[in-house]
Formats: sequence, structure tokens, C-alpha cells
Amino acid sequence: MRTSVDCFPCFMKQTVIALRQCGCDEIIQQKVFREVLAIMQDVDMNKPPAYTTTFIHRAIREIIAGDPFKDIKQKYNAIALSLYPRLRALVTASPDPLWTAARLAIAGNIIDFGIFTDIDIQKSVDQSLEAEIAADDFISFKNDLASSDQVLYLLDNAGEIVFDRLLIEELKKAGKQVKAVVKGSAVLNDVTREDAVQTGLDAICEIISNGSDAIGTILPWTSLAFQEEFKKAPLIISKGQGNFETLLRSRKGTYFLFQSKCDVVSRELGLMPCSMLFRKS
Amino acid sequence: MRTSVDCFPCFMKQTVIALRQCGCDEIIQQKVFREVLAIMQDVDMNKPPAYTTTFIHRAIREIIAGDPFKDIKQKYNAIALSLYPRLRALVTASPDPLWTAARLAIAGNIIDFGIFTDIDIQKSVDQSLEAEIAADDFISFKNDLASSDQVLYLLDNAGEIVFDRLLIEELKKAGKQVKAVVKGSAVLNDVTREDAVQTGLDAICEIISNGSDAIGTILPWTSLAFQEEFKKAPLIISKGQGNFETLLRSRKGTYFLFQSKCDVVSRELGLMPCSMLFRKS
Repeated sequence: MRTSVDCFPCFMKQTVIALRQCGCDEIIQQKVFREVLAIMQDVDMNKPPAYTTTFIHRAIREIIAGDPFKDIKQKYNAIALSLYPRLRALVTASPDPLWTAARLAIAGNIIDFGIFTDIDIQKSVDQSLEAEIAADDFISFKNDLASSDQVLYLLDNAGEIVFDRLLIEELKKAGKQVKAVVKGSAVLNDVTREDAVQTGLDAICEIISNGSDAIGTILPWTSLAFQEEFKKAPLIISKGQGNFETLLRSRKGTYFLFQSKCDVVSRELGLMPCSMLFRKS
Repeated sequence: MRTSVDCFPCFMKQTVIALRQCGCDEIIQQKVFREVLAIMQDVDMNKPPAYTTTFIHRAIREIIAGDPFKDIKQKYNAIALSLYPRLRALVTASPDPLWTAARLAIAGNIIDFGIFTDIDIQKSVDQSLEAEIAADDFISFKNDLASSDQVLYLLDNAGEIVFDRLLIEELKKAGKQVKAVVKGSAVLNDVTREDAVQTGLDAICEIISNGSDAIGTILPWTSLAFQEEFKKAPLIISKGQGNFETLLRSRKGTYFLFQSKCDVVSRELGLMPCSMLFRKS
């Protein structure tokens, strides 16, 4: 996916969101803006927008000497964990627990403070549960799953990871070996090993790092060990827009579960913004 | 009003909107972005955002060698003119025509493709007519008007000018001498003499230019003749957010009629975004 001119306002918006999180003074803010604007002057429009946002978030972390999203990630994990018992009951009571868990995993992708800032998770999730899936390859997924004993699960955001846990629990119940992939280090609201531990996912499946601090999965920037896992996995579940942007045409056997939160991605897919997707590569 | 970091995404958004209007190729687009980003690196946060948007729109017009909004301004004037008979009848049938015309003038401020891109004018105006005025100094305005024989009317956008015409007609009926102020040359969707002629306003009152291509009214950049008019006018009607930003604390006897379309201005006023205002300086 190429970068669109419509991504430029969003690059600025993400910067503002990060600055609001860290609450830094105006001198630091101006330093950040100067650096981010310099990055934007060199945007390679042939690359997905995730490249530029990766550079932007690196610059922000460097200038403020920290991770602006550390606290809010913990907070969103805690909120999502408080919802877990109700969500777990919903899955267990469902006539098709795998389907309900998958749908919840897509619903949980609404938790994205890189795009939304002030969000009532419970309400948003309830709405997502009622919305139609715009591209629904669940049947194909179920078939592919039947012949795969392993699943590589590319996680996305903090908070959302609790919803992923529900789906991973169902995959485990079905006897699958699951490796859940976290980022190598902090970037925006993406999960790292810390979040997997906070939400108890490390007790349910193996957690592996992709060795990268990029938004989405920019394969050449990931570790060789991860690249090997990516290549050999019979089935991949890829969560979130960033992974979709960067992995769109990378390989077969990948299912993209996400909500298209921006106009650029929605246009690429020929869908309405805020569509929910369960889409095979 | 100072510039906020929240203005930065909006600077980019305005650039994207202008580029969409002119339909120029990617090389020109990149040239524009490079120049706009350079302008943004030098933003003086102590000045209103209208300063930066003025520089941005100047750069865009220079690079594309034209006015990207020329066609859409004519189109919005024509749409608004087609609504005029219905709106005129609404004012005439009203128990308080001045009040209805003033309200329509505020409602017409919804026509702002610098902020909204795809807009159903009729529907938006109907909604605006039903909405509450968040800060309503109409009574005070009526009193001030009774003791003023002249009104200086600072126009804002194309399309909206037809709604201003309704209010100016009522002022003329009340025996007031009205001078309607247009921009000295093209900037965004702001009206120039051409728009006053297209919408027939020049047949109703005197049209004067402020001699400037700035967003809002940046007094030091206006002509000396306009500055004199501004100083001596007993009563000023100032339309739109740009004029509010730049004239907020400039003088007494000014009534700001507009909709607060952005979070920054709404916050400055302690109001919800999209509030309608009839506010005395």
C-alpha cells in the first residue's frame, strides 16, 4: 500500500496524540514538531504510511527520552481485563465459540488511541459486535485451520490483546500450537512482551518477539528468527491496520482481522470507513 | 488567539483539500507539501493560526500558478443563490425578520470547504436553523444597531455570502448604510469582489476591499483605506472563524457571527465544537 497525501494530516495528528500523552512543555513540543516535519519532507510515497509513522514515533521517543504511551497502554490493558469475564462467558455460551471469539478479536481492534483518543471501550465493542463484517472469509479460515496444527498470531494493540486472548484460547482448545507475536520494543500502542505478561497471555501460549519497533510488520526490519517463523507458519492471523498495510501482498495463508479506521485504507479496500474485516490474503 | 499544536493536522488537511481541488499531478503535490512543511517548521505559535494558513495558501497558489478554489466558489455561490428565494420568504414571513436573517447568516457559515469537503448545504442549514445559539448577544446587537446609522460587514466565504445578503437587506430596510468587506485577492474560499457581483450583493450595498489576501482580517496587512473604515465604523458584523481568530480583542462594537468549527476555537470559547455564536467583542 502506497502513502496517500491524505496520510499527511494523520501523521500530524499522531504526533499531537503522542505529545498530549507525554504532557511535555512547549519547547520540547516544538522540537518534536520540527523533527517530525523534517521526516515528512522526506516521505517515500511508494512505501506504506507505516514507514513514516515508524520514523515519527522513533523521533518522538528519542526527543522526549521515553515512551509516551507506557501508562495509557497499561490502563487500556487493565480496562480490557476487567471486561474479560463477561467476554469469556459470551464466547463459552456461543453456539460457535470460535466465530464469536474471532468477531470479538476484530471488535477489540477498535481500541486504538493512535487514531481514537477518547473512547468508551465497552460501548465501542458492543457496537462492533452488532456491525456487519464487510469482508468475511471465516468459512475459508475454518477450513484452513482444520489442516494446520500451528498458528502464528500477529498481535496489534494494548487492550485489544485481551480480545486476542479469547481467540487464542479457542485455538488452543482446538489443539493448535499458537505463537503470539509482540513488537521487539515500544512503538505507539503496539504490544510488547510486557503487555502479554500483564494480560496473562504468556500463560496461554508462546510469546515471540518480531525484533522490530516498526508500526505493522515491515519484514526486512524484523529479526531473522521472526522472518523464519513468518515463512514457515502454515496459517497466520494478522491483527490491525498497520499489519494489513505492510503485509497486504506478502504471502498466502494470512487472515487479516481488523477495522479499517482511516479513509486511505478503506478506499484501498473499496469499503466504507470503519468497516470490520476478516479477510484472506 | 495563539496557535495550538492541534492546528498542525489542520494545516495539513487544508493543504490536502486545496490539492484535491486543483487536481494537480504528484510532482506538483510533492512540491507543495515540501513548501508547506517548511512553512510549518517556522510557525510562530504566538500568532493566530490564520497567519500560517495565509502563508500556506499563498504558497499553494504560487506553486500551482492559480486559485484552486475558483471553480468551487462559483459553484457554492450558485447553489446558495438557488436557495435564496426560499430563504428570503422565510425571513419575510418571520415575526422578527432581523433575527431570522441573522440566524441564517450564522447558519450559512456552515459552508466552509476549508474545513468540510463534501457538504449538503440545504441539510446543514436546516440543522443549523434548529440548533441553539451558544452565545447569543442579539438583544445587545439590536440596541447598538438602533444608535448606529452605519454597519461595516466583514464577509467570509463563498456561498455563505448569499446568507449575508439576507441580513444586509434587513439592515438596509432599517435605514442603515452598509459597507460589505471582501478580500483584496483570492484566498481559500473567502469572498472577493467577483463573488459579491455573482451573488448580486453589489446591487444592494457598497462593496469595499480590505486590500489583503489573508485568512481572517490581519489588520496590519490590510490597506490603509480599510484600516480607516475599520477604526471609524460604529458597528461591525464580523463573519466566520478566521475573522474571530484575528480580531478577537481588536476593538469594541464588533459582533462575531460564526460557527466554531474546530476544537481549538471551541476550547478558547469554552464551548462544544460546532457551536453557533452571535457574540459581542
